[in-house]
Amino acid sequence: MKNFFSFDDVKDINALLETALEIKKNPFSRQEVGKNKTIGLLFFNPSLRTRLSSVKAAYNLGANVWVLNAGGDSWTLEMGDGTIMDGNTQEHINEAIRVMNTYCDVFGVRTFPNLKDRDYDYQEVFFKKIMSLATKPVVSLESATLHPLQSFADLITIAEHKPPKEKTKVVLTWAPHPRVLPQCVSNSFAQWFTKVDWIDLTIAQPKGYELSPEFTKGATLEYDQNKALEGADFVYAKNWSSFQNYGQKLDVSENWTIDSAKMSLTNQGKFMHCLPVRRNVVVTDDVIDSAASLVIQQAENRVYSAQTIFHELLK
Amino acid sequence: MKNFFSFDDVKDINALLETALEIKKNPFSRQEVGKNKTIGLLFFNPSLRTRLSSVKAAYNLGANVWVLNAGGDSWTLEMGDGTIMDGNTQEHINEAIRVMNTYCDVFGVRTFPNLKDRDYDYQEVFFKKIMSLATKPVVSLESATLHPLQSFADLITIAEHKPPKEKTKVVLTWAPHPRVLPQCVSNSFAQWFTKVDWIDLTIAQPKGYELSPEFTKGATLEYDQNKALEGADFVYAKNWSSFQNYGQKLDVSENWTIDSAKMSLTNQGKFMHCLPVRRNVVVTDDVIDSAASLVIQQAENRVYSAQTIFHELLK
Amino acid sequence: MKNFFSFDDVKDINALLETALEIKKNPFSRQEVGKNKTIGLLFFNPSLRTRLSSVKAAYNLGANVWVLNAGGDSWTLEMGDGTIMDGNTQEHINEAIRVMNTYCDVFGVRTFPNLKDRDYDYQEVFFKKIMSLATKPVVSLESATLHPLQSFADLITIAEHKPPKEKTKVVLTWAPHPRVLPQCVSNSFAQWFTKVDWIDLTIAQPKGYELSPEFTKGATLEYDQNKALEGADFVYAKNWSSFQNYGQKLDVSENWTIDSAKMSLTNQGKFMHCLPVRRNVVVTDDVIDSAASLVIQQAENRVYSAQTIFHELLK
Repeated sequence: MKNFFSFDDVKDINALLETALEIKKNPFSRQEVGKNKTIGLLFFNPSLRTRLSSVKAAYNLGANVWVLNAGGDSWTLEMGDGTIMDGNTQEHINEAIRVMNTYCDVFGVRTFPNLKDRDYDYQEVFFKKIMSLATKPVVSLESATLHPLQSFADLITIAEHKPPKEKTKVVLTWAPHPRVLPQCVSNSFAQWFTKVDWIDLTIAQPKGYELSPEFTKGATLEYDQNKALEGADFVYAKNWSSFQNYGQKLDVSENWTIDSAKMSLTNQGKFMHCLPVRRNVVVTDDVIDSAASLVIQQAENRVYSAQTIFHELLK
Repeated sequence: MKNFFSFDDVKDINALLETALEIKKNPFSRQEVGKNKTIGLLFFNPSLRTRLSSVKAAYNLGANVWVLNAGGDSWTLEMGDGTIMDGNTQEHINEAIRVMNTYCDVFGVRTFPNLKDRDYDYQEVFFKKIMSLATKPVVSLESATLHPLQSFADLITIAEHKPPKEKTKVVLTWAPHPRVLPQCVSNSFAQWFTKVDWIDLTIAQPKGYELSPEFTKGATLEYDQNKALEGADFVYAKNWSSFQNYGQKLDVSENWTIDSAKMSLTNQGKFMHCLPVRRNVVVTDDVIDSAASLVIQQAENRVYSAQTIFHELLK
Repeated sequence: MKNFFSFDDVKDINALLETALEIKKNPFSRQEVGKNKTIGLLFFNPSLRTRLSSVKAAYNLGANVWVLNAGGDSWTLEMGDGTIMDGNTQEHINEAIRVMNTYCDVFGVRTFPNLKDRDYDYQEVFFKKIMSLATKPVVSLESATLHPLQSFADLITIAEHKPPKEKTKVVLTWAPHPRVLPQCVSNSFAQWFTKVDWIDLTIAQPKGYELSPEFTKGATLEYDQNKALEGADFVYAKNWSSFQNYGQKLDVSENWTIDSAKMSLTNQGKFMHCLPVRRNVVVTDDVIDSAASLVIQQAENRVYSAQTIFHELLK
C-alpha cells in the first residue's frame, strides 16, 4: 500500500480486515512498527472524531503525532502553477506539502468538496495534487468524495456483528438533514461494500438522490425505502446532497427518517450511522438508543481502522 | 475513586496527600500505571494553567494525552432529550461524550457557570450529565461551582509550608476584581479546607458575598477582613461574584486589596492565589513579589494534584 | 549554553555544527537526554514550520512537548511594572512566564516586531523580559529582530552542500514581496554567516534597505545585485522592510527577483530561501524548481537545528 485514498488501494480486503481485528484484540502489540515514527495530521476542514481517533491510533501504535488545523483564513495556499504570487496567497502548495512531509512518516490529510463544481470535486483535484507532491505515504482523513477510514471502520463493525449466514444484507439508506452535506461517506460506503464478497448491498434513496454510478456499480438501487429494508441485517442511514443536481437539497415528500416501525421490517437488523447524527431527523431516539444501535461501536472502530492503515504504511 | 468531581470523591484525604507528596518527590516513578493509557482533556471554557499542568501530569505518568477545545460556536451540542435536531445543534451530548470516551482512559472536562440561573449552575446539570454518560472515569478540570484540582494543589502547597503546630489557621478572603467571576475556586477551597483535620478555616467577605452554606459549613465567617487576618498562617485571596444576588458585583466601600499592612496582622502568613491575578487590585506588588508569596508553587503543584488523581483513577 | 537567543549564545560554532550533523545521521541516538523532559513552545505569533519542526525535534530526542498559541485577544498580558490591573489585561507577564516554566524543562518562545518603534524592537524588550523571568532555558523560535534556529538550519544546509574549496561565497540578497516583512531572518543570517570562518558573506540590497550595521559588520555590502552574485556558491533570497525608514516598503526600480539569468552569474550556485516564499516575486518557478534549489532541505534541517539546541540545553 503506497497511499490510502480509496478502496482501490487495498490489495486484499479480507486480509486487511483480519489484521484490524487482531490489532483490536491486542492494540499495543506492534509498537516496534510505530517507534520513532511520526504521524502528521493536516485538517483543511475541522474534525473531532477523525482527529481524536487518528491520534489514539498513533498512540496505540507507539508513534508520535502532530495535528495542524489549516482551516479558515489563517494559511492561504496557492494552487495555481505559474502564478505570480503578489496577492493574498502566502505559500504555494508545492512547498507546503513537501515541507510538512519532512516532519512526518505518514501524512494524513482531510480536504472537502465545494459542492458547486462537480467535476473539480469528483476529479479530486486537491487531494490528488497533495498525493503527487507528497514524499511520504498519504492517508485520506476524508477527501472531496470519499471517506475510506470511515468505511473500513464500518466494515470492522459489520464483521463483528454479522449473522452466521452466507450473505449479509446491508442497506444504505438516504435520510433527511437540515443542511447540505457531501456524498463522501455514502460514496465510500458504496465503493467498499459492493466489493466485499460476503455482503449484498442495497442503496435506498429518493428520486434524484442517486449516488455516482462510479461507486454504486454492483449494488441494488431502490426508491422504496420500506422495500429496501426488508430482511436487512444492517441499516446504515446517512444524508447526502444530490449528485445529479449537484450539491442541491431536493423536495422529498415521503418520510425517510428511520424509526422502529421501519426497523421492524428488517431481519432484526442493526442500526448504523457514522455520527454526528441529527436525532429525530435522521433516526428516532428509540432506534439509536436501542440495543440494535452500533453507532458507538463504529466510532470506536475508527481507532482500529486508522491504526491498521498506519501500520500497513509503516511496517 | 470512580470520578473526581468534588471533595466527596476522596476517601482518605491524608492518604491522598501523602501520595501526592511522594509523586512530587519521584514524579516518573509510576509510569507503569500510565503506560499505553490516554488522558483526554475537553475544554468547554479556555484554559492555560489547567491545560498545561494536566498535560504535564499525563507526561509524568507516562501516559498519552489529547486536548479538545470545544468553546465558541465551533461545535454546538444538543442537551435536550427528545429534541428534533433540525436546527443549529450539530450533535447530541449523548453521542459526543460516549464517542470521546472510546478514545481515552480518563476523561477530564472543564465546564463553566452561566452565572444567571443559580439552580442550573449549582445543580451542576451539565457536568452531572457528562458523568452519567461517561464510560470512563471523569475528572473535573473545573465545573460550574467547583475546582477540585485547584483545591488539592492548594492543600499540597499548604502542607509543604505549614508551621509546626497542631492547627494551621487558613484565611480565605474575598478581594476586588474588575470582572464578574465564578465562585468555583472559593467554593471548592471551602469544601476542602473545612474537612482537613489540622486546618482551621476562616472566610472573610463583605456583606452579600457569603458563599453557599453547603460549602462553608465548619468555617468561621467574618466580615471584618483585618480581624480575620489576625494570626493567619496562610492568606488565600480570591474574588468571586455574589451567591445571594447571583452573579452580581456588589458595592463594597472598604478596601479589600491585600497589602503589606494587612499581611503584618498575620502570623508571618504566606500569601496564596490560584492565578491569574490582577496585580494591585487583588494584591499589591510588594506582597505577591515577597518571599511569603506561594503563587508559583501553587501553580507548580497543579501538576502533582492532577498526576495524583490520574494515578488514582488508572491504578 | 544558558539560553539560545542569538549567535552570541554559541560557544563553538564548528563544534555545534558537528553535533548537528551527527544528530541528523542518528536522530534517535540520544533519547536518554530527552527522556521525561518536556519542551514547552509558546507562540505569540502563528507558526507552521517552526512549530512542526520543533515538535519533531522534541520527538526525535525522546522528549515530550506542548504548544500554546497565545496570539489574538485570547490572553492579554500586562507588561507594565506597577500597573493597577483593573482594565483589560488578564495576567501579568511576571506570573505567566514563571508559571509556564514550571510545566517544562526547555521553553521555546516566538515573539514578533511591531515594525513601528525601532528602539523597542531592536532592544528586544519583550524577549529579554521573558528571559529575565524564565527559570528554565529559553529558546528563541524567532524574536523581534532575530531567528537563530533558521540561521543554524541554513548553516547545516550550506555545510552539507558546500564546494570543496577554502572559502565559500554566500550571497544574501534582498528580494521583492507584496507585504511588509520583519528583518529577523536576514539580521540573523548576517549575524551568523559573518562569524563562520570558512564563509565570505556578501549582502546585496537596494539603497535604503541596508540592515542594521550591528549584524552586518564583516560582510561585503553591495547595491548591484548582479555584481554581488558573481561567483556565488549560495544565493539566499529574502525580503525585508527598511531598517532606516523603519518598517517601510521603499520604491525599487530595478528587478530584484532571482531568475535563471541571475543564477547563471554564480558559480553553479545553490538557491536558498527560508519559506514560505512568494513564487515569481522573490524567485521564478524555474529556479526554485531546479536541482540547485535547497529550500526543502533547509526546511528539513529546521528539525536538526532545533534538536541540537534542545539537546545542548538538556544534556
